[in-house]
Amino acid sequence: MPDQVRRGLNGVLVAESELSKIDGDAGRLSYRGYPIAELAERATFEETLYLLWNGSLPTRAELDPFSRELCSLRPIDAAVVQTLERLAQRDEDPMAALRTAVSMLSAGDPERDLVPTDSETIRRTGRRLTAKLPTVLAAYDRLRREEKPVEPSEELGHAANFLYMLTGTEPDEVAAETFDTALTLHADHGLNASTFTAMTVASTHADLYSAVTAGIGALSGPLHGGANQDVMEALLEVDESGDEPVEWTRSALDEGRRIPGWGHRVYSVKDPRAEILEARSDALAQSMGESRWCEYTRAIETYLTDEKGLVEQGIAPNVDFYSGSVYYQLGIPIDLYTPIFAMSRVGGWVAHVDEYLEDNRLIRPRSRYVGPDSRSVVPVEERSDSV
Amino acid sequence: MPDQVRRGLNGVLVAESELSKIDGDAGRLSYRGYPIAELAERATFEETLYLLWNGSLPTRAELDPFSRELCSLRPIDAAVVQTLERLAQRDEDPMAALRTAVSMLSAGDPERDLVPTDSETIRRTGRRLTAKLPTVLAAYDRLRREEKPVEPSEELGHAANFLYMLTGTEPDEVAAETFDTALTLHADHGLNASTFTAMTVASTHADLYSAVTAGIGALSGPLHGGANQDVMEALLEVDESGDEPVEWTRSALDEGRRIPGWGHRVYSVKDPRAEILEARSDALAQSMGESRWCEYTRAIETYLTDEKGLVEQGIAPNVDFYSGSVYYQLGIPIDLYTPIFAMSRVGGWVAHVDEYLEDNRLIRPRSRYVGPDSRSVVPVEERSDSV
Repeated sequence: MPDQVRRGLNGVLVAESELSKIDGDAGRLSYRGYPIAELAERATFEETLYLLWNGSLPTRAELDPFSRELCSLRPIDAAVVQTLERLAQRDEDPMAALRTAVSMLSAGDPERDLVPTDSETIRRTGRRLTAKLPTVLAAYDRLRREEKPVEPSEELGHAANFLYMLTGTEPDEVAAETFDTALTLHADHGLNASTFTAMTVASTHADLYSAVTAGIGALSGPLHGGANQDVMEALLEVDESGDEPVEWTRSALDEGRRIPGWGHRVYSVKDPRAEILEARSDALAQSMGESRWCEYTRAIETYLTDEKGLVEQGIAPNVDFYSGSVYYQLGIPIDLYTPIFAMSRVGGWVAHVDEYLEDNRLIRPRSRYVGPDSRSVVPVEERSDSV
Repeated sequence: MPDQVRRGLNGVLVAESELSKIDGDAGRLSYRGYPIAELAERATFEETLYLLWNGSLPTRAELDPFSRELCSLRPIDAAVVQTLERLAQRDEDPMAALRTAVSMLSAGDPERDLVPTDSETIRRTGRRLTAKLPTVLAAYDRLRREEKPVEPSEELGHAANFLYMLTGTEPDEVAAETFDTALTLHADHGLNASTFTAMTVASTHADLYSAVTAGIGALSGPLHGGANQDVMEALLEVDESGDEPVEWTRSALDEGRRIPGWGHRVYSVKDPRAEILEARSDALAQSMGESRWCEYTRAIETYLTDEKGLVEQGIAPNVDFYSGSVYYQLGIPIDLYTPIFAMSRVGGWVAHVDEYLEDNRLIRPRSRYVGPDSRSVVPVEERSDSV
């Protein structure tokens, strides 16, 4: 069927990739062959970035200079902070503020005149962007609270440094590790809409700032990146209602509402990332002495699985169903959940752009014309009111 | 071949559309059934926008309030001008400055909390964006020349107002009409990379600022929007060389250079937009008493067609081959040619987003995994140096 319209491009293969492998029926995800659970357990986000960008996990001798470089690239220009201040005065949505500030970062790139499609340049620009995104985001959150941005640490890892810049206090080990894991889990996931957007932009030989800014725009859509925020809002609603979570869920379904964090275009079983975050959420609850959010989440999952049979129908908990409560327990404001997703996924965007440009082909599909036949332009004064 | 990789999505149909119809073999282009040559001749850019967004050409009673609304939406926030100033201090590329400023416009949208996927909201936001893009661009050009931005006119049409804001002087009729025609010709062209990018972003239910910012990013790539700039640089090179244009072209080809402005993914014959701009370029040359650029262009075209047989091979002049010299004759700085393309194409981006969201399906293709088989994560201290 060469002329079939492939709306949504569902199932259309647009590239070959050595990055993530997703088995939606078995609930398996790996990056460059490494199962996501092992990476979450035994590697940091920095190691995962190195893996995605370079093809193999780093040795200690490779990791240290890589981490030091990322660390040195964290600071952002005063001009970007000033723009963030203006946006904070307007109470701009953090995801939109991130989009604007990331776009603005190109002006401060000392190498912005290099050919942006060379693999070395893509990776170096990728390291710059990945290093600076947390700084932008933490600065914006503080500015809108009328607090002074915290300078990035020169010691802490990527995950811990973000929590430090956000709060002004170094996070404890459980918090830092949990957040690091969350970043690792979100770093890549095949050709999702934002990754595909970044690739499409880069396929025109636009620079990486254009590709990543576009990726942030795509991720800002509620059908892509917004669901963990919805999950947390639902959990807060359960809490405020005073109802049992199962009662609340039953009423919500009766009102025709969708329970957020369930179902995925690719997974027909429970998302492997959700499994990992579930365990982390437990550990966090224990360390903080607050088990409420885990209990609500688990009660809803059991009800939807056992009584409503959703999982049997291929609608299972996805990563968002657990990441919301993890971020909440880490003290992260709800409207930063999607920007945090961007902070992690930028790793995948850069990796896919680099991979696609090795053998680039401008991404340009077609549409089937179904409009009016040929008609003639009558000058405006002679047009009648009846269309 | 369901499992074939469609690199570049060449020939893949991703949507049905009532907007532009392109017959690449016959060299025909129409918007909603109206041949592009008739629109260029008998309708303004505002009428073309109305057509793309509303489905029919406006009557006088429809056009006047539409034009007045666009006019009233031209001013931009002081905060955006301040950011443009910062970017000018860094000598940022105008296309990157446009990307950042357009992203920033969302903060000033009084209706930014409306559901961004409602057709009325898309069109209203589209009118805002389309009205403000020229203001952003003209302000940026003046700021980098250390001149004060010119407030938008409340009288002039879209095309004339841009030239006025750029230069501070009202353009004459030939200049205004020529520029208006150029905007009409570039307003839509099927699912090119930037339009497809805007649709992909909007398919996540992201807002139109995200979609248009992403479209600008895609258009900034030299494989998409940058070629008219290359054409003009080539013509200036001809001029400076003192050689005959044919001589210059022959040497360039001998050196293995590509002549910019030739060949198109969709057209195998001369681009109909090039035909129209060729005539406008002549009129402009006559009105300005400077025929040099037309002569160079025509000489190169004749040589490549008759002696090199390029057109016979399906490589023909595209729209960029003529727009470059038209813009040059209008006194527009060369690095604004691609941003001007965005000023026009935003009309198509908005129309396609609106059309696709009527029956939205998240755009999410797949990749074929060709990476390593399953492997196990060894902790960093135990990894060997040999990869």
